[in-house]
Amino acid sequence: MSDVLSVDPRTGRPRGRVGAASTAQDVDRAVRAAAAAAPALGDRARRADLLRTAAALLEKSGDEIVATADAESALGPVRLTGELARTCYQLRAFADVVEAGAYLDVIIDHADPSAAPAPRPDLRRYKVPLGVVAVFAASNFPLAFSVPGGDTASALAAGCPVVVKAHPDHPATSVLCAGILRAAAVEVGLPEDVVGLVLGFDAGPELVRHPLTAAVGFTGSVRGGRALFDIASSRPRPIPFHGELGSLNPVVVTPRAAETRADEIGAGLAASYTLGMGQFCVKPGLVLLPEGPAGEAVLRAVVAAAVPSGPLLDPRMREAFLAGVRSRVALPGVAEPLAAGEAGDDGAPLAVRPGVLTVAAARVADGGPYEELLEECFGPLTVVVRYGSTVERDAVLGALPGNLTATVHLAADERDDAAQALVAGLSAIAGRVVVDGWPTGVTVAPAMQHGGPYPASTSTSTSVGSTAIERWLRPVCYQNVPDPLLPAELREANPLHLPRTVDGVRTA
Amino acid sequence: MSDVLSVDPRTGRPRGRVGAASTAQDVDRAVRAAAAAAPALGDRARRADLLRTAAALLEKSGDEIVATADAESALGPVRLTGELARTCYQLRAFADVVEAGAYLDVIIDHADPSAAPAPRPDLRRYKVPLGVVAVFAASNFPLAFSVPGGDTASALAAGCPVVVKAHPDHPATSVLCAGILRAAAVEVGLPEDVVGLVLGFDAGPELVRHPLTAAVGFTGSVRGGRALFDIASSRPRPIPFHGELGSLNPVVVTPRAAETRADEIGAGLAASYTLGMGQFCVKPGLVLLPEGPAGEAVLRAVVAAAVPSGPLLDPRMREAFLAGVRSRVALPGVAEPLAAGEAGDDGAPLAVRPGVLTVAAARVADGGPYEELLEECFGPLTVVVRYGSTVERDAVLGALPGNLTATVHLAADERDDAAQALVAGLSAIAGRVVVDGWPTGVTVAPAMQHGGPYPASTSTSTSVGSTAIERWLRPVCYQNVPDPLLPAELREANPLHLPRTVDGVRTA
Repeated sequence: MSDVLSVDPRTGRPRGRVGAASTAQDVDRAVRAAAAAAPALGDRARRADLLRTAAALLEKSGDEIVATADAESALGPVRLTGELARTCYQLRAFADVVEAGAYLDVIIDHADPSAAPAPRPDLRRYKVPLGVVAVFAASNFPLAFSVPGGDTASALAAGCPVVVKAHPDHPATSVLCAGILRAAAVEVGLPEDVVGLVLGFDAGPELVRHPLTAAVGFTGSVRGGRALFDIASSRPRPIPFHGELGSLNPVVVTPRAAETRADEIGAGLAASYTLGMGQFCVKPGLVLLPEGPAGEAVLRAVVAAAVPSGPLLDPRMREAFLAGVRSRVALPGVAEPLAAGEAGDDGAPLAVRPGVLTVAAARVADGGPYEELLEECFGPLTVVVRYGSTVERDAVLGALPGNLTATVHLAADERDDAAQALVAGLSAIAGRVVVDGWPTGVTVAPAMQHGGPYPASTSTSTSVGSTAIERWLRPVCYQNVPDPLLPAELREANPLHLPRTVDGVRTA
Repeated sequence: MSDVLSVDPRTGRPRGRVGAASTAQDVDRAVRAAAAAAPALGDRARRADLLRTAAALLEKSGDEIVATADAESALGPVRLTGELARTCYQLRAFADVVEAGAYLDVIIDHADPSAAPAPRPDLRRYKVPLGVVAVFAASNFPLAFSVPGGDTASALAAGCPVVVKAHPDHPATSVLCAGILRAAAVEVGLPEDVVGLVLGFDAGPELVRHPLTAAVGFTGSVRGGRALFDIASSRPRPIPFHGELGSLNPVVVTPRAAETRADEIGAGLAASYTLGMGQFCVKPGLVLLPEGPAGEAVLRAVVAAAVPSGPLLDPRMREAFLAGVRSRVALPGVAEPLAAGEAGDDGAPLAVRPGVLTVAAARVADGGPYEELLEECFGPLTVVVRYGSTVERDAVLGALPGNLTATVHLAADERDDAAQALVAGLSAIAGRVVVDGWPTGVTVAPAMQHGGPYPASTSTSTSVGSTAIERWLRPVCYQNVPDPLLPAELREANPLHLPRTVDGVRTA
């Protein structure tokens, strides 16, 4: 039985044994227990209660959670305290979503014997939970995209029990948080198995293959996510796989924006690409700057900004980051005005230094080995691409794979057709378009879309915001069902006071 | 270059050459032309116009369409005239959906610098079309689920150009209808390539593999659908595959329903399983009847009903049907109170006779070779399973794969917990639950759900009803985008008068 260890990313040294890697039998047990707990989640009020109680209990153990997560992730207590607040906000926001009930999408069409082209029977439709959801925790958010994170919160809100595959970077945090979620379930009178946890690499494929697993939520790398997506799609019964895999998050700075706001844009970019040591899925990884003095001024401001060295989430990621920097720098025509690499200049032996690369747009559009510049390099690196014309700019944008975000910086008076076309063009390659801001900092709100064309996502869904609940539901229509036999959500008198669309008219 | 022939299913004889099978180059050309036409579909008013004009032009050529479809499908002019009416209704219904604009799901969250846990930027979200949709026409609906059918109508409504893969059973109808749709496009000032058509077996995989194909709609067999699903999922960039593959559509008759309504239920079942020669995806293929005299009375009524012999859609399907009947009848314990098989008793040499098989529930639950009884047998055959207890009944229901529909017949006063539990149980295995009715006849209405757990569907979507449009859209969020640069759908003043949710409040 192989051990699962918690490791200090600042030193690479093990902190201790967290448990044993889950065997196939362990995974089977966890999924079956979760499936058995599913009916208890049918009570919406209790689900809302669960989500709020979980938030309260997480806050109560906040110090221990932050300390444990920091020891395993080196993300620092300030960031992790903020992440915990976000996590708890998210749990409570989904409690509100559950109570409001709009997500059930109740549609009622009364019978109409005289309808054309055929008589219409009474039809009533709402959404029901899919079943056990497998959640893959992300390396870079030990809380908000991990055990108590958005996938778990939205799945529980939908009425789906959850089995989380812990990320190897923070197993102790995972065990701690899973225990708290299970305690919250017991506190509100639900079976603790509405949340399960499995550990170790092999548990991942097992979890996706399990016949009772009904859907998957994943946040991670293109390679890992695609491998699991392929398993989900090739099952005898394929299941939805909502994966967020990778994104370059291009930023375009127009010539006039560079002329009018070089320092501000440069400082903003420096802060954004180094935030959390560049370990955000929405890190701006490719920046299109205009050739010439204004663009150079932006670049100078980026390079001049004070940026922190620090450790990455784990030694393997550090190696991948350093290798990614090396291979990019080796490309002819790529310069490094701010050299990323081993830090060596502070107390943390595994720290790395953020950096900036530059390259001409014509090279990138060439493809070949330059395609590497169109792949995400996880960590504090951004690639500045100098463009000489909108044709060059658009050639680079057109060569990009799908993205979570795309950003444009404009001058204050750039509100013309060209600017509008640019914004429209960016919406074709990303799930979120940002103007005069930075993609880092994903707001938890109903209008958020955190997802985008592949490989940003494997589906058209979002993993952040209220509509993330839609991933775990399927519609069911009831035809000609007598009122007493209908689920309460669909009864004529609307006993649950749900918003619904009746004969085409929406009622609150 | 291989010929595509139109064949008379009543005789098996070719009616004539329709065209050449599309080559890889033909498919590439069709998809590229469709993609080039996509921007023109951005105008919602024009899309609504296109859908209504298409309906009008189809009606204008109604006689020719019905005659051609009948010659290729043998479905008969009455059924096909009804199907054409349904098809035109569907096109117009989607025009209404486009104009109403609720499907855009506009959500606006205004900026809130004081929001907890973090300041909120201005966020605005709506849904945009995915791109070129590949539509696979169904054998059994030459109109309503083929070239001018629900997938095409919903995709065009969403703003997606369509390339249809014609079904080999009705190529002449396909060419005729595609021409009409393209003429409708020209009439409303759109490029004709918003609808394309490809012919021949090899065109299918090519179409799914094409890099510019953004999503697939499919109605057909489990084998064919799964093969295409696998291609869609294993592309370098996987795409959504909305497939409706196969369904047994179980019917449960309770003992008390059998006691009180044996003749009515028997006659209804006979009409439903033979409708359209049993070639509906919602044909009731497995009927759970109670053991004993009441159940026998239902069976007698089914067997006694006059049912028509007739040809199937093509000679290959006829062979598959006859082989399916033979292998089921060969199972020990399977009886055939009404023997399905070659008709030989009317003028059509390729006609078949509907039939009913019976088997005890205990056998079915045994699995092994009896699993064949849990697979769809396309054509006019239904399998009556006699159950001696609710345990036996539920064991059979529990062994079923996913279904489009599940039906229960109750006595007029069965409104108790047991009936409620039965309805709830059926909703776990199907997308639509019917009480005291029959699954055949799928109403085009907002509350319809035509889809269900795999293999009924490969996704959680519906292919019939207003919400079918959701399959071809993805959300995009605009963050901090100045009003003049926003798409009109998201501008503050709501110039398009769209329903939207603003700061959590839904406005009409």
